[in-house]
Amino acid sequence: MKEKEALCNAPIGVFDSGVGGLTVAREIMRQLPNERIVYFGDTARVPYGSKSHDTITRYSRQIVRFLQTQDVKAIVIACNSASACALEALEAETELPIIDVVRPGAKTALEATHNGKVGVIATEATIRSNIYKRYIEEHGSSINVIGKACPLFVPLVEEGLWEDPVTDEIAGRYLAELIDIDIDTLILGCTHYPLIRSTVGRIMGEKVTLVNPAYETARELKEVLQKKGLESDTKPELGTERYRFFVSDAADKFREFANSIIPYGILSAKAINIEDY
Amino acid sequence: MKEKEALCNAPIGVFDSGVGGLTVAREIMRQLPNERIVYFGDTARVPYGSKSHDTITRYSRQIVRFLQTQDVKAIVIACNSASACALEALEAETELPIIDVVRPGAKTALEATHNGKVGVIATEATIRSNIYKRYIEEHGSSINVIGKACPLFVPLVEEGLWEDPVTDEIAGRYLAELIDIDIDTLILGCTHYPLIRSTVGRIMGEKVTLVNPAYETARELKEVLQKKGLESDTKPELGTERYRFFVSDAADKFREFANSIIPYGILSAKAINIEDY
Repeated sequence: MKEKEALCNAPIGVFDSGVGGLTVAREIMRQLPNERIVYFGDTARVPYGSKSHDTITRYSRQIVRFLQTQDVKAIVIACNSASACALEALEAETELPIIDVVRPGAKTALEATHNGKVGVIATEATIRSNIYKRYIEEHGSSINVIGKACPLFVPLVEEGLWEDPVTDEIAGRYLAELIDIDIDTLILGCTHYPLIRSTVGRIMGEKVTLVNPAYETARELKEVLQKKGLESDTKPELGTERYRFFVSDAADKFREFANSIIPYGILSAKAINIEDY
Repeated sequence: MKEKEALCNAPIGVFDSGVGGLTVAREIMRQLPNERIVYFGDTARVPYGSKSHDTITRYSRQIVRFLQTQDVKAIVIACNSASACALEALEAETELPIIDVVRPGAKTALEATHNGKVGVIATEATIRSNIYKRYIEEHGSSINVIGKACPLFVPLVEEGLWEDPVTDEIAGRYLAELIDIDIDTLILGCTHYPLIRSTVGRIMGEKVTLVNPAYETARELKEVLQKKGLESDTKPELGTERYRFFVSDAADKFREFANSIIPYGILSAKAINIEDY
């Protein structure tokens, strides 16, 4: 009985290539306030989106090994590039429940589209993997999925240009072909993109539904924990034990950015050497 | 005698966080056509410019260990961020001659300025290190050095927007304060920046001298090799043995970008796991 309680009170492991996954962590905090979180951001090797399938998989494996040392009860891959490249390998290698950001987002888009034309904006790695296209087309054979890589969005977000004429101009170029094709649903397929949601929404127009996988991922996590009887039933005190943050580089910079995303002050972020795992 | 000949015919090891250092390799090919080159681009962990001093130093050490397995006779740190953070540590640990990009660039700026106001544009890591400022002020006490980090330049160059209104707009913002201060010399303190030299030159105006450390670095390398009697005296045949390229990720993408910079076709780029060194 005590063992079961300890397991239920164990934290959720959440990881991303850097700060983007904090938009997913924020949703988990909102929707599952009883849960503890151990977050890892791979700030020493960020970004993943421009890197190869094999490298992203190798990095993700190291992170899962690190999270297992923190006795997590489930793992959330809060990074589209890592979900696209590493999910299958990670599921084959660990017995922990793994929730990724791609499947929940794809499912929602499938339900949202009326005209059967769904757009995906994401990093090069995610687009190249064709992962959204494969999931959606598996479940809705008449659905047409059009992917568009947007490599400058992450640096623009990280430079703080969330609302800026330059971001408008770049977004206008990236999104032009999706507008031409007349999509009615657009997946924000990178965890940084919710931060420029209003820019993307303005350019796409009101008739296009924007899907933020962060929201659906937190909902999916809730369902999985319920089904496996792993929910925490006591709300932990706010403090370092409730939400813990680890990074592979420059904890100060991470904390600064994190504080602009997460509604609770990030008390500490600890730097570790991820290559040791 | 044979040993000496073998040493002189050994390659120069050149490294960078990714593709930017190819602008330095290109200058070495031009100015020292007899020399062989082994180039390493850390494409799995690029960029360095946003990362911490310790992480950049750790990565640079691994790369030097790799280059030593290739029996290089000298090492060129073709990356400002790595020069700024790791040079001292590397010089203390290896007996090979090490040429960095910062000192040659600083020396040229010192000679070029008339009004004693020198600007440096570079990554966050390089600006934070204050390395150009320290070198220049050590040698010319009345010189005022003003640094400006330009985090979006690297992603803009890598997206291919070398000549583009967006690059003009961003450059205009970054450079405004340097124009206000009335600098007469500007160091392009990141190996990517020579690729947007014409944009920067247009915005700064004709009266400002742009210093490209790549040129000075190749000249410095030539001097060091001469002084140590390490020059190669036979021109090697063009082919894979003359210029060899290694990367830590996605060799295809590297080759494509490299071919837009280097006047010789990059025949092969081999991916290795740099974390093993």
